[in-house]
Order: sequence, then C-alpha cells, then structure tokens
Amino acid sequence: MKNLIFGEIEGTKIGDVFKDRISLSKSKIHTPPMYGIWGRQNEGACSIVLSEGYEDDIDELDYIFYTGHGGQNVPGGRKQTSDQVPSRGNKAMMLSAEYNLPIRVTRGHQTKNGPPKGYRYDGIYYVNRYEKIKGKSGFYVFRFHLYSELKISDLEKKIINNLKSDYSRAPRSKINIDRIIRNIKLSEKIKKFYDYKCQICNVSLKTPFGKIAIAAHIKRLGKPDHGPDTLGNMICLCPNHHDLFDNYGYYIDDETNEIKGLKEFVGKKIKFNKNHKVIKEFLKFHKKKFIQNN
Amino acid sequence: MKNLIFGEIEGTKIGDVFKDRISLSKSKIHTPPMYGIWGRQNEGACSIVLSEGYEDDIDELDYIFYTGHGGQNVPGGRKQTSDQVPSRGNKAMMLSAEYNLPIRVTRGHQTKNGPPKGYRYDGIYYVNRYEKIKGKSGFYVFRFHLYSELKISDLEKKIINNLKSDYSRAPRSKINIDRIIRNIKLSEKIKKFYDYKCQICNVSLKTPFGKIAIAAHIKRLGKPDHGPDTLGNMICLCPNHHDLFDNYGYYIDDETNEIKGLKEFVGKKIKFNKNHKVIKEFLKFHKKKFIQNN
Repeated sequence: MKNLIFGEIEGTKIGDVFKDRISLSKSKIHTPPMYGIWGRQNEGACSIVLSEGYEDDIDELDYIFYTGHGGQNVPGGRKQTSDQVPSRGNKAMMLSAEYNLPIRVTRGHQTKNGPPKGYRYDGIYYVNRYEKIKGKSGFYVFRFHLYSELKISDLEKKIINNLKSDYSRAPRSKINIDRIIRNIKLSEKIKKFYDYKCQICNVSLKTPFGKIAIAAHIKRLGKPDHGPDTLGNMICLCPNHHDLFDNYGYYIDDETNEIKGLKEFVGKKIKFNKNHKVIKEFLKFHKKKFIQNN
Repeated sequence: MKNLIFGEIEGTKIGDVFKDRISLSKSKIHTPPMYGIWGRQNEGACSIVLSEGYEDDIDELDYIFYTGHGGQNVPGGRKQTSDQVPSRGNKAMMLSAEYNLPIRVTRGHQTKNGPPKGYRYDGIYYVNRYEKIKGKSGFYVFRFHLYSELKISDLEKKIINNLKSDYSRAPRSKINIDRIIRNIKLSEKIKKFYDYKCQICNVSLKTPFGKIAIAAHIKRLGKPDHGPDTLGNMICLCPNHHDLFDNYGYYIDDETNEIKGLKEFVGKKIKFNKNHKVIKEFLKFHKKKFIQNN
C-alpha cells in the first residue's frame, strides 16, 4: 500500500466525479482500488469510499454513520456474519477520531446520496466519535460518526450537478445543528455544586486559570442519542473519568448509585448534592450502552 | 445587556460593512456599542470587535491573537497600566474556549486587516487556546488565540471588496496550516513505551476500545510555540495530567526531572524509558511558560 496522504489532493476539488475505482485511485483521492478504508492501524485513515457495502450505514450527506470493516461472509458483501474487531481499517478510523485527522469521503453511485454514475469526491470529514452497536444482522459492528467540515448548504452547492435526480435533503431544524450550543450556565452550575471535584474520584485539578472539571452529559447531546441539556442529565467529572465514562469504561448503577467496572472503586457509591437530582432513565441508558460496548 | 446570540445572524453575511458601531449594534452582530467583547462570565462570549485597542494584538486574518479586557489606564486606551484579571470579558472568552463556542469577529477600520472605513463582519472564529503573557508594557495580559472556521483563501474571497489597498497576505507555507498533521506513529510509539500509563501518576485507563493515554508535546506544535513533532518533545500522560500540564498547573524540572507544583507528588521524579530521551530545552521552555502564567 502506498504512503497515506492526508487532506486535500492538489488538482482535485469537491464534486469531481471519477468513472470508476481505477480513475479514483489514479487521482490519489483514494488509492486502494478495492478497500473502502484507506488507512493503517498505526497511522490513521485518510480516505473512505461509501459504496453501500454495509447494511447499517446511514448517510445524511453532511453527517454519516459509517460501518467499520470486516465481519462479512464475502468481502464487500452486504450481510454481517460475525462481529467486527478493532484492528486494521477499524483501528485506523479510531486513530483518526483520536487525533482528529481529516478524512476524504467519496460516494459511489450505489449510495442514495451518490452521483448518478461513477464516484464523486465530497471533501473532508472528521470522525466525531465511534461506538459498537448490534447491527441489523445481530452481530456487533463499529459505527463511526463522520461529519463534513462544510455546512450542508455549501456542500450541496458544490455537488448539485452530480446528484441523483431523487436527492432530497433530510428534514432539519432551523437552528445550526452543526455545533450544539450547550447551556453553559447549567454546566458551570453543576461544576460549582461539586466545587469542581470529580464525583467519582474526588480529585480537584488546579491551574492558574481556575479549576478543571467537566460537566458531563450522561445521555449524550446531539445525534444519535439526543440527550437533553438539563441538570438531571449531568454529572461533574475529571477529564480521566469523563473519557472513561464516554468510552464505556464504567457505569453508575441507576438503582444503587454504585460505580461499576472500575476495580479501584469496587462497592463505592457516587454521591449527589441534595440540589442535584439525576434522572435514573439516563443512567439506565448509559448502562445499556456500556453493556453493548463491553 | 441584551441576551447573547451565538452563531450567524440572519440577514447578515461575511463581508458586510457597517458605517459605525451603532449600525453594527443594530445589525445584532455585536450589540454592545462600546465594549470589544460581547459576553457574560457565566455564559461565554459570542462576538468581538477588533479595533486595535491593545498594543499586543496580532492579526493574520484567519488567525488572531486577541488581547483580553482590562488593565488599561483609560478604557479603550492603548497602554497597559496593570495586569489583566480572569473575570468578565476574559472569563467569557475562557468559557468560549472551553466549550468551543462560535465567536463572530468584526474588524474596524483602525486595524491593518480591517475595511477602508467602518466595521466589517468577518464571520465565525473559535478560541483555540489562551495564555497569560507579559505584554509590551511589562504587565500581564490574556492572549486568546482565535482561528477562522474558513480557509484563508475562502475568507479573502468573501471580503476582497472591503479590504484596504495595502492588504497583503502574510507569507505561509504551502501545507495546510489549519490543522497540524501530527506524526501518529510517534504518538502511538510513545504510548507503547509506557504501556499507556501516565508518567506522572502511573494510572492506566481501560476502555472496551483500548487504553486511553495522551502523547503530549512539551513545547506545543503550531503557532506560536512551533515545537517539533519528535519523541524528544513528548511525554505520555493521562488526560488529567495532560490538561494540567497544558494549562501550567505543574512543570517538570529539566535538571532533576522532579515534578513541581503538584502537592500530591512533592519530591517525586518523572521516570523515562531508556529508549526515550527528552530534550531539556523543551522542559525549560515549558517551565518558563509555567512561571509566566502563575
């Protein structure tokens, strides 16, 4: 495999259509002529091609749920016949998420938002997050959430001449959905409730600019979880226990408030300020995700 | 002060010029008719106006070092006569950094990249980071690093008709400077050296997707520090000790390797793998920044 190339490719632009995978490969946008992911498991992924090889993909043009690599009976087949594993292309995508690497996205004519024929280059996307989900076949797959660096309207303008005639934009709310504006007041309030101490380990991190703590949402904001931005959906964590919480390294039992999955806190219960009522439903939701991902 | 409004304002676009601060205020882009920062210390900042009130501002159009609020003999004067404090407008900007809030930027005719006359709206920027620096007057000021959500060439296109005749782009390297492509292999290598354990606290954070650790650059990559992306400039940290390190909550003595500034690690020395030689110069540089910011 050739050296990875990150970012835009000179001489190409968004909306360019290539007649087949060979021409796409020659353009250097996506060199491997067969694989959907161009990446290495110790360097990240620089490009993907969407060609509807997976039954669990979701594609809203500026936002994609992209299913990882492997677990199919035949390569490039549509049916999952085993669980996917976090190696090769999947590990490359995980690194791209961790390091916020730019990923070129190309859509094939096989996809609903692809061009009428050939393969269309659709610009740079970033991996927002990833998770393991039970796919439609009952096997576990990795789902990578990618979003375009462009606003949907700007992206549409650049590719409008190479869209299928039945393309229609998914319904959207009027507000800017690209970046969710959190209620900062609430986040600051919850940190003050706990004096910026982590509810798990009680650590207090001091810097010359103030104390560091994270107001974590138990059920995440935005797609696909759509958790609410309310105090009942928040806890105060240090960055370590926030990263672990978000990546399903532990959970908080919704009945007993026990911390589960961290050996240094066996039997310990998380304490809540009397003015802070967490909604059990959100802890239950997170626990379900924990179980699914472990 | 009216309610803050985040993001783009309906009916306005990048490149729009307003004849004075009153018209700008009426457009809702920047409502306060006098202040440079429109924000609240528990909600963040949604807009700033550059009008060269501060002697330490740097402006490269798509990248701005914006000096915080206060410490001048007369409001809106050019001379610092005391240290700035992390409250009001400055605290609002710090929240915008923490929560990655969109900030509208307007340039006045007084600035080198401003319009020939009036005030020009230049779109959405984000606060990348901030630091306390000794300004030209010898007093401490906050410096906020803002970057445009647009590429410099796209930004220039939108405002080309309202630029001063002597506008010239600062020299730039050919590579995409918006996002620094780190050497992922090196980052992964250093984590493996230490088995994903924090060199400060030895913690190991396990998730179903692998262990969490951060390959931290001692002297930062990119503007303004321009540290190198080499093993000699890296250490392996947990997110907590990474955040503290980056925000000058502690430093590592370049002579003795002692951890300084964390009361739970008094007298403790950081240990290095024998294959990992850290360059003292970078530790010295970080120590200097620590002293400056504390």
